[in-house]
Amino acid sequence: MDSPPIPDLAIVNCTALVGSTAGRAEFAPGTTLEITGGAISAVHTHPVDAPQAREVIDARGMVAMPGLINTHCHAAMTLLRGAAEDVAVGAWFNDYIWPMEVNVGERDVYTGTTLAAAEMIQAGVTTFADHYFFMDQAARAVVDSGLRANLGSAFFSSQGADGLGASIDFATRWSGAAGGRITTSIAPHAPYTVDDDDLAAAADAARALGVRVHIHASEDIAQAEKSIAARGISPIEVLRRTGVLDAGCIIAHGNGIVPDDIPLLGAVRDRVGVTHGPKGYLKFALGPITPIMDLLAAGVPVGYCTDGAASNNTMDIFESMRITAILQKQLAGDATWFRSSAALHMAGPESAAVLGMRGQIGELRVGACADVILVDTSGFHCQPVHDLGATLVYSIQTSDVQTTIVDGKVLMRDRRLLTIDGDALRSELRDRAREITDRSHGRTIQDYAP
Amino acid sequence: MDSPPIPDLAIVNCTALVGSTAGRAEFAPGTTLEITGGAISAVHTHPVDAPQAREVIDARGMVAMPGLINTHCHAAMTLLRGAAEDVAVGAWFNDYIWPMEVNVGERDVYTGTTLAAAEMIQAGVTTFADHYFFMDQAARAVVDSGLRANLGSAFFSSQGADGLGASIDFATRWSGAAGGRITTSIAPHAPYTVDDDDLAAAADAARALGVRVHIHASEDIAQAEKSIAARGISPIEVLRRTGVLDAGCIIAHGNGIVPDDIPLLGAVRDRVGVTHGPKGYLKFALGPITPIMDLLAAGVPVGYCTDGAASNNTMDIFESMRITAILQKQLAGDATWFRSSAALHMAGPESAAVLGMRGQIGELRVGACADVILVDTSGFHCQPVHDLGATLVYSIQTSDVQTTIVDGKVLMRDRRLLTIDGDALRSELRDRAREITDRSHGRTIQDYAP
Repeated sequence: MDSPPIPDLAIVNCTALVGSTAGRAEFAPGTTLEITGGAISAVHTHPVDAPQAREVIDARGMVAMPGLINTHCHAAMTLLRGAAEDVAVGAWFNDYIWPMEVNVGERDVYTGTTLAAAEMIQAGVTTFADHYFFMDQAARAVVDSGLRANLGSAFFSSQGADGLGASIDFATRWSGAAGGRITTSIAPHAPYTVDDDDLAAAADAARALGVRVHIHASEDIAQAEKSIAARGISPIEVLRRTGVLDAGCIIAHGNGIVPDDIPLLGAVRDRVGVTHGPKGYLKFALGPITPIMDLLAAGVPVGYCTDGAASNNTMDIFESMRITAILQKQLAGDATWFRSSAALHMAGPESAAVLGMRGQIGELRVGACADVILVDTSGFHCQPVHDLGATLVYSIQTSDVQTTIVDGKVLMRDRRLLTIDGDALRSELRDRAREITDRSHGRTIQDYAP
Repeated sequence: MDSPPIPDLAIVNCTALVGSTAGRAEFAPGTTLEITGGAISAVHTHPVDAPQAREVIDARGMVAMPGLINTHCHAAMTLLRGAAEDVAVGAWFNDYIWPMEVNVGERDVYTGTTLAAAEMIQAGVTTFADHYFFMDQAARAVVDSGLRANLGSAFFSSQGADGLGASIDFATRWSGAAGGRITTSIAPHAPYTVDDDDLAAAADAARALGVRVHIHASEDIAQAEKSIAARGISPIEVLRRTGVLDAGCIIAHGNGIVPDDIPLLGAVRDRVGVTHGPKGYLKFALGPITPIMDLLAAGVPVGYCTDGAASNNTMDIFESMRITAILQKQLAGDATWFRSSAALHMAGPESAAVLGMRGQIGELRVGACADVILVDTSGFHCQPVHDLGATLVYSIQTSDVQTTIVDGKVLMRDRRLLTIDGDALRSELRDRAREITDRSHGRTIQDYAP
């Protein structure tokens, strides 16, 4: 009889977040996690004598959590961080970002995505869903950085057939790449920039490929109201009629989801999710915020996101979680709603479900991907720890993340990045940062007029 | 003719925040700051050849900012961090905090204040206003840690004459102590726990001593409504009638300030300020938020605070600033309001004014106290820096604060605390953390029934 293979990696002596529901986060002290072939092969919630593994990480004093999931971003927009501040969303697009994106080339997308990867690895994010241009370059950055990602090549109908075609081609070529770390989406920009025929074609392509559609929809209530005024239906109903909901989709950001939309989303809750990044929503003064309570009541997964760093300024999912938690309490008028356990559950299984990956990521369980972060709660800003769930939601900072592991591979150890050359990255940024914000050419990639 | 004395310290090659208004933050690259006898003695916004000083700190690549100001906290409540989570404010007081505070002894206040000091020094906070019990111990922790503080000994009328007397005694004995680093306040808890006679006596004492009254008032709209229903006047009007406004006061938290209160506060804007810590307000689901726009329009200073770590979880003023900025935009429905310059201006001169210290702290100017922090913006979460004001408001983390200087003395250098023994502190915390949350005695220090 064969003995089981020796694990590639054992993480010993950690306090592990081994399960969560909205009502309870379960932490197991003295846990040993074993990782074999990129997956979690054992979770021993009791001390193990002399753990056998090719490599052993002693995580005494650390909390092991599932790696965080950023369900929607535009990773390369880190290059435009701070380039369009203190402006409303219309001016942000038309006067700053879309003119600046005329300058964004293939090399920039590799650089900007690598910068985002560096920031996310340091912040304990192990999976991100990206929606941008020149996505072959973003995919290269994912391959090189070691992160897990769901990638979609964004398109507008104004590009003609090329945009949709390229999005389908990209999703086909990269699905399952990097040993399965890369999954893909079909990525129409939004119902206000992509026509119904293209949305229907995107849905058909997603269904054929077995992937989701990743799309902005009902980003704010103004978009929903304009759609209802112009067409008599909400953007979510547009997604339903064009088959996008039925195909399965990732919806960013849904602040304009109206009550009539909830049953439409509830009917496809097994294949639809909503991404939530409130820092940017408040900063843009968007008004009504994603109706998370109603969505969760209808069984629709909601996950955290950062959106792009040009609006959110950071790629910090701990921050998205913290702001979501306090804002949800305030919006509900109930300090007992959205407990720290609910906040952590949304970071794990719920965010995973938004990407169609429930059970694969976002949980420390046997068979799940070995995406694990080790977090140090010994900082004075965390001490004393009376409630570990509250510590992780309300006190932790990204600088407390000591080690980040994706697919069983250590990407950051004791705060040191192992897959990204920081000096080369900084040098590249110095060369490009100023040029990329030049708007003297007077052109734009698109007009914001939802 | 005597030559000027050689500075004790020169900080060279920094980019310094040398001035701010709500509309503009002025950064000067290549600045040299000179510090002599605890004060800033020169600000050279041009390179200086071979700076003469007893000590030189090369701050190349760093931003020099005025040390941050925490205008209202209960520092020792760090001991109760996470001990009362996901509960409404009434239960928080009556079921958790006030029963637990039965256990808080003199030694605990020294330990808890030292823990807060460690966290604040690491977070770039150089001055804090504290409102708590056993304040001789808090003062000792201030002396030992090297921070600057405004300290008030809290009292309830339920204590009889002793509470008020002790508060006056404390404010008298410690005013100007620690070489001027300690200033004091008279600290009645709130209009709902301190009667009008005691408020009037507190105002008289403050006037006689030349200090302010530091008090909770109109913390939420429910308190204001109850006061109006019971007495026909708002808590702010109670402060006016009892002479507290006229004496000068620090008002925490003012979420329940009503429109009629604004002119009352505007009339004493030279000696009254409001403290603002929105993380805890949202977490408590308090509803309406401090009307900052109206207060600023009336010339009433508003400053950032963290409140106690038992509600806010952290003592992080960068976080208070960030959440204030995004929340103000959202509440105003205007993304162009509360620019990053306004956020920084509130952190500096406005927060200083709340404590009656405008011109003394919160600004890098000749003659001001030498309270300076050096912040590293080279982290990937800050790069590239297209807008340094936005970087400081939206991207920076406390772990980016490298050096903290108070009164010309370096309290933290390259993230290493120089005045606090971290190991001894951790050991003390281990001993006391569990005991302090014991509620089996069934007693409480007060009843929350505003």
